[in-house]
Amino acid sequence: MTPRSLLVVGSVAVDDIDGPYGWQRDQLGGSASFIGVAASYFTPRTSIVAVVGEDFAQEHIEMFRARGIDASGIERRSGQTFRWVGRYAPDLATRETLDTQLGVFAQFQPKLTDAHRAAELVFLGNIDPVLQLQVVDQVRKPLLIAADTMNFWITGHRDALLTTLHRVHLLIINDEEARQLAGEHNLVRAAAVIRRMGPHSVVVKRGDAGALLFHEGGVFAAPALPLAEVRDPTGAGDAFAGGFIGYLAHAGRFDAASVRTAMIYGSVMGSFSVEQFSLDGLRNLTPALIQDRFDAFFELSRFERISLA
Amino acid sequence: MTPRSLLVVGSVAVDDIDGPYGWQRDQLGGSASFIGVAASYFTPRTSIVAVVGEDFAQEHIEMFRARGIDASGIERRSGQTFRWVGRYAPDLATRETLDTQLGVFAQFQPKLTDAHRAAELVFLGNIDPVLQLQVVDQVRKPLLIAADTMNFWITGHRDALLTTLHRVHLLIINDEEARQLAGEHNLVRAAAVIRRMGPHSVVVKRGDAGALLFHEGGVFAAPALPLAEVRDPTGAGDAFAGGFIGYLAHAGRFDAASVRTAMIYGSVMGSFSVEQFSLDGLRNLTPALIQDRFDAFFELSRFERISLA
Repeated sequence: MTPRSLLVVGSVAVDDIDGPYGWQRDQLGGSASFIGVAASYFTPRTSIVAVVGEDFAQEHIEMFRARGIDASGIERRSGQTFRWVGRYAPDLATRETLDTQLGVFAQFQPKLTDAHRAAELVFLGNIDPVLQLQVVDQVRKPLLIAADTMNFWITGHRDALLTTLHRVHLLIINDEEARQLAGEHNLVRAAAVIRRMGPHSVVVKRGDAGALLFHEGGVFAAPALPLAEVRDPTGAGDAFAGGFIGYLAHAGRFDAASVRTAMIYGSVMGSFSVEQFSLDGLRNLTPALIQDRFDAFFELSRFERISLA
Repeated sequence: MTPRSLLVVGSVAVDDIDGPYGWQRDQLGGSASFIGVAASYFTPRTSIVAVVGEDFAQEHIEMFRARGIDASGIERRSGQTFRWVGRYAPDLATRETLDTQLGVFAQFQPKLTDAHRAAELVFLGNIDPVLQLQVVDQVRKPLLIAADTMNFWITGHRDALLTTLHRVHLLIINDEEARQLAGEHNLVRAAAVIRRMGPHSVVVKRGDAGALLFHEGGVFAAPALPLAEVRDPTGAGDAFAGGFIGYLAHAGRFDAASVRTAMIYGSVMGSFSVEQFSLDGLRNLTPALIQDRFDAFFELSRFERISLA
């Protein structure tokens, strides 16, 4: 079957990141970059809608195109590209933001072409929920709308976020965001609260503790692959989201079994992402490498259903 | 096949615990209590060796006996039972020790009867590694020696601990202890360091992030069951250890598939334990309840091995 079309809307950014491996400067970043590139291994019908400044290196656009991504929706404006400067703790478990320069991203107004409006799957990266809603209003007949968000919108732009959530089928956020959004520490109860806000499915990302899916089919726990070398956690959640939504576009259906498989392909792409800086862990993959790692996840979590009696 | 015999050596204690549900006073606690009761559902040949004071309620000994546990090795001495007073944070994620009274535990010298020396499986609960070694020296022909330890012994009694570890086949500790023992933050590398200290297998308990097994068969990730209600995490790691070693005694073999299953039965008993205070979640289980929860873990983590091609 032909894979479904996927529209990714989010940020394309340039990051300066400090950590145990020293400064990594002028790195390609942003949610749409990670989501789009990760998804491109599963559906050749991936489009990115974002905005960059006049300083943005054309080679990154070429990289997107080489991956088969429709980059026609990446608008180039006069001004600076969105820039994030951050520093990781030596154990990579926590990070602090040293500087954020929105640049042209401050004027981002996603305007979809007719082709983009025909998208069958939509992933709304972590941007202002008002902009997320503009995208939802423009797509014509989407089969699945998935979204991410963050604490900044949850606490400071809650009403707009709740309006957007009514239109979202599937929310992918991390555990702290889920707790904050629901006002509930327990993740089972937090997911139940969030599902009453609109999304029929909630994916809770937990970093090296894996990810949980809460939906009408119950709960599914995707493990994280223990890795001997982690260099850069930046974008891991977006790589997960890209593998997840990309696989669903590939499968073309969203039944419980497909969504479980999507959770594992999300975890696969997240694991590749953290092994290298920026998008380096994602840009040179092959179907065979991805399949090998999927098999590693299967081996990691497989056990026999036995009975004591 | 007849289940193997299991000897559990550790603490039997009385706990006063504060937390989001208020004070729970005079609760049965201690590593040997949780390990022994959890294991008793898998092998009727479970013995506990420990020490209690003259204040220890006989009803607890009767409870052990009602579970089929050989409690003849629980020595009663004049003095007070080991007492722990602790307080959990409102989210139950962290706890502080308010008071520890060793009481008769300070003079604990495990002396095994001839029957106990014949144990086929041995679990050394978290006690002084010097005492753990005394137990190892007394058992005659054990098939498997498993042990737990904690930061107090890792940092303050390291040489004794390393001597004991040489004689231990399988170490079950939590993630922070693994990092501390190995002097290595990354858990994959930490487990490799620990396996060079003696144990051929290392189980890393991660609370609500599940547990990891590192052994010659590679890595296995057991998920934690997301629970809507957690009341008391005390003893969860010991309940895990009891289900784990109890299942291995039941299976009578320690091949890779059996150890994976043991990881799940450990997780099953840990999940029952945290739902109630003290040992209340463990004391009234049935084979059917345990099997149902094992099946819930299977459902939680099951996905199909598929190929993208």
